[in-house]
Amino acid sequence: MQIKLYYKNVLADVIGEEHGITSTQFEDIAAQTLPLITRLNKERQKGKDCKTPYRNLPSDTDIRKKVNDLVAEVEDHCDTLVVFGIGGSALGNIALQTALNPYMYNIDPNQRSGPQLFVFDNVDPAQLSSFFDWLGDGLDRTIFNVISKSGRTAETASQLLVVREMLLDRLPPDSLKEHIVATTGFDTDDEGNLKSTLLTIANDAKLPTLEVPNGVGGRFTVLSAVGLFSAAMCGIDIDALLAGAADMDARVSCENFTNNPAAINAAINYHFYTRGKKNSVIMPYCYALKDMADWYRQLWAESLGKSTDLDGRKVFIGPTPIKALGATDQHSQVQLYREGPNDKLFTFLQVKDFDAEIKTGPAPECTSDLDFLANIELSTLLNNEKRATEYALLQDRRPCLTVHFDKVNAYTVGQFICLFEVTTSFAGALFNINPYDQPAVELGKEAAFALMGKPGDYKKSWTYKDFADEIRSRTDIDKNFLV
Amino acid sequence: MQIKLYYKNVLADVIGEEHGITSTQFEDIAAQTLPLITRLNKERQKGKDCKTPYRNLPSDTDIRKKVNDLVAEVEDHCDTLVVFGIGGSALGNIALQTALNPYMYNIDPNQRSGPQLFVFDNVDPAQLSSFFDWLGDGLDRTIFNVISKSGRTAETASQLLVVREMLLDRLPPDSLKEHIVATTGFDTDDEGNLKSTLLTIANDAKLPTLEVPNGVGGRFTVLSAVGLFSAAMCGIDIDALLAGAADMDARVSCENFTNNPAAINAAINYHFYTRGKKNSVIMPYCYALKDMADWYRQLWAESLGKSTDLDGRKVFIGPTPIKALGATDQHSQVQLYREGPNDKLFTFLQVKDFDAEIKTGPAPECTSDLDFLANIELSTLLNNEKRATEYALLQDRRPCLTVHFDKVNAYTVGQFICLFEVTTSFAGALFNINPYDQPAVELGKEAAFALMGKPGDYKKSWTYKDFADEIRSRTDIDKNFLV
Repeated sequence: MQIKLYYKNVLADVIGEEHGITSTQFEDIAAQTLPLITRLNKERQKGKDCKTPYRNLPSDTDIRKKVNDLVAEVEDHCDTLVVFGIGGSALGNIALQTALNPYMYNIDPNQRSGPQLFVFDNVDPAQLSSFFDWLGDGLDRTIFNVISKSGRTAETASQLLVVREMLLDRLPPDSLKEHIVATTGFDTDDEGNLKSTLLTIANDAKLPTLEVPNGVGGRFTVLSAVGLFSAAMCGIDIDALLAGAADMDARVSCENFTNNPAAINAAINYHFYTRGKKNSVIMPYCYALKDMADWYRQLWAESLGKSTDLDGRKVFIGPTPIKALGATDQHSQVQLYREGPNDKLFTFLQVKDFDAEIKTGPAPECTSDLDFLANIELSTLLNNEKRATEYALLQDRRPCLTVHFDKVNAYTVGQFICLFEVTTSFAGALFNINPYDQPAVELGKEAAFALMGKPGDYKKSWTYKDFADEIRSRTDIDKNFLV
Repeated sequence: MQIKLYYKNVLADVIGEEHGITSTQFEDIAAQTLPLITRLNKERQKGKDCKTPYRNLPSDTDIRKKVNDLVAEVEDHCDTLVVFGIGGSALGNIALQTALNPYMYNIDPNQRSGPQLFVFDNVDPAQLSSFFDWLGDGLDRTIFNVISKSGRTAETASQLLVVREMLLDRLPPDSLKEHIVATTGFDTDDEGNLKSTLLTIANDAKLPTLEVPNGVGGRFTVLSAVGLFSAAMCGIDIDALLAGAADMDARVSCENFTNNPAAINAAINYHFYTRGKKNSVIMPYCYALKDMADWYRQLWAESLGKSTDLDGRKVFIGPTPIKALGATDQHSQVQLYREGPNDKLFTFLQVKDFDAEIKTGPAPECTSDLDFLANIELSTLLNNEKRATEYALLQDRRPCLTVHFDKVNAYTVGQFICLFEVTTSFAGALFNINPYDQPAVELGKEAAFALMGKPGDYKKSWTYKDFADEIRSRTDIDKNFLV
């Protein structure tokens, strides 16, 4: 069972030459992309300098074994699993759970075989208070999976300091190791010191640990222990997930452009970006795939939003990913999508067979207005809504891609993840930027450190006080501009 | 307690002349916007032709009474409240619930005084099946609030046909009226016939009804019975909500530009749109305000995304609203926001005091790396993250607005709703378009009707079969373009 990319409705034959891709243009982007397939395939063989180690995760049986062993060890004393992480240490976990477990998983005990799952990728005190108020004595059957490569991510480290105190305060002194699983970087610096603060803490408190793989940016880690532990705890078939990713990995290695869905996807996205369509809307027609759109948003934005290209030129490029949900957003965004600026490429996710079906009943006799909706299947309606929206967009010459799923299951979701990860690698090559770093995230992190009073070396050799003063002077409220 | 708009960080003095608003430009947009305040104030006095009847909702005591009376009548036999609606018949309900009730409202019975609330603004069969599997016999203590002005919205009408059959099948024959509340249009055509199919059905089955106000587009109805019934059922203080909106309505009526937050907000948004910043990012630093961003997305996109201006010129305009969440999306989108194209205006929502606080504990002794995060309040961290992100964006000359809340409560949320609704009216006037219609939504609706086999008059005098054939021919899969 393979997911497929459908790309006819981006072509000039369908939406005209002003907005669609002509056959000449298609040949051009094919020619431009083809050598990148070979280049990316060779990249994988570079050993420790390889820039795409994420591609080896699906075949790494060692990770799987460690995750499964730890799950077997802890699952019997865990009713509630909490993930503390942010960005790539949360979005994949959330996306897998929404995609592969029932909508009512956390509310209906009959619909889950594992623990209730809460992923907190924020430090909102009202949100967390509400959670801990509910948890109460359930703390003693709760596991906190703290995920941070460095262990110094301010949001995640703060969450750790909250629950560490809570556990030490309320449970026996050596209980940290029963309640915290640390997922973090294992590597060391040149002198053999651990790089991860979280690993130092974990070793000291004898916490179970899992590894954030070396050299893999957070947004590419969902198929490592980062995403797999919470998934496996909640009963998701991680073997099928990884097998699906491996299946797609073979397809996206194919050195024939027209048989390689990642190469075609990247080429089409690149083409439209360079022709003024700088927004990329991803619109699943399936509730389960809703949060895959958030995972994709990070992957796309953080990988491709770059000020400087590989030749050192200032380019300030990067498509803006936008999340929408069908049919919901037909009644919210489609007015803009059809009549607003033609600056968007649409990627629909469409599902043939849903896990369950619901049929409408007969229509009331007092009116004939709803007769056409009587005794229908909701999946038929939802898929017709997708067709109707695509048709309406095509009438306004807006380009549309579709990713088809026969079913949403661990195997097809694994394929989807791999398809978009490798698409990102191809797109990075087409944009001539480095898709694997995120230099612009640093300044905000440093600024937050300074405001929180962390000693350290800041720019211009400032102390944290100097730097914090500068930040406050830019962000304090000047009452002359407050209304 | 008033929310405030802070706009210094969009000015050229802060981010430079290339990207900021110079004082001359500010004077220009002020002069352009000032007469619109008077025009909008006069619009309100037009009686039944008035285009902004939404502005009278906060002072309509009749709506409040009807909602409160119905709540009093049904609340004792309702453990579960389901809203069936889509677009403006759902996004406001969701936003109010997330903003004003605890995060764990649906899971923790101790954190709610009203029923569990589920808003289904989609027709995904897997999602709905999971819900009904859980509900089981709880059906007899469930109320379905079906919201649709016409009663012919395909998604909502289908949901009605699902639960109608379920209720007739499982409960006594006259129980529909105990379990369905119809919120719909009450108006009639020239011959005195009801326009709403839902009202026809409701009258036939003697269902309790609430009114979708006449002349108010769905996206402006949150302060009518559409949004108020589910809010009041769930214990939200709708009097305070409406009082907050009325408070803001007075402020946005002020005919002095520099004292009118909606006029300034609209003018700044318009200015940036016309200078190449066509994306508008709304980024609350507060979980509770997260879904207000979705409500805003519809308001902004559907009101301002228009192909044709009031003089009949083709313009294809409309800012693209984008939802982000702080601090979460710092680790997902900020790389793009800082280094990607400078095509975005940022609007932060910032909260001074949260409903509850959480403090971190001491740092572990094995490392000093986290000492700066020991014994801090999470609200301090969250607000410092906002400052840090704003600072980083300003360094890259990206314009930033902030809406300040002293607290998130019904009164300030009411203000926020009114501020952005009236901002939309001003922005519509500046863009010289009609912000109150949504003509482009029709074609997709018609296309879905045709695909579902609804008889009727379609374009080019086609039957539904002709039209459905045309749609299928455009959206069927051509295997030559499937990979």
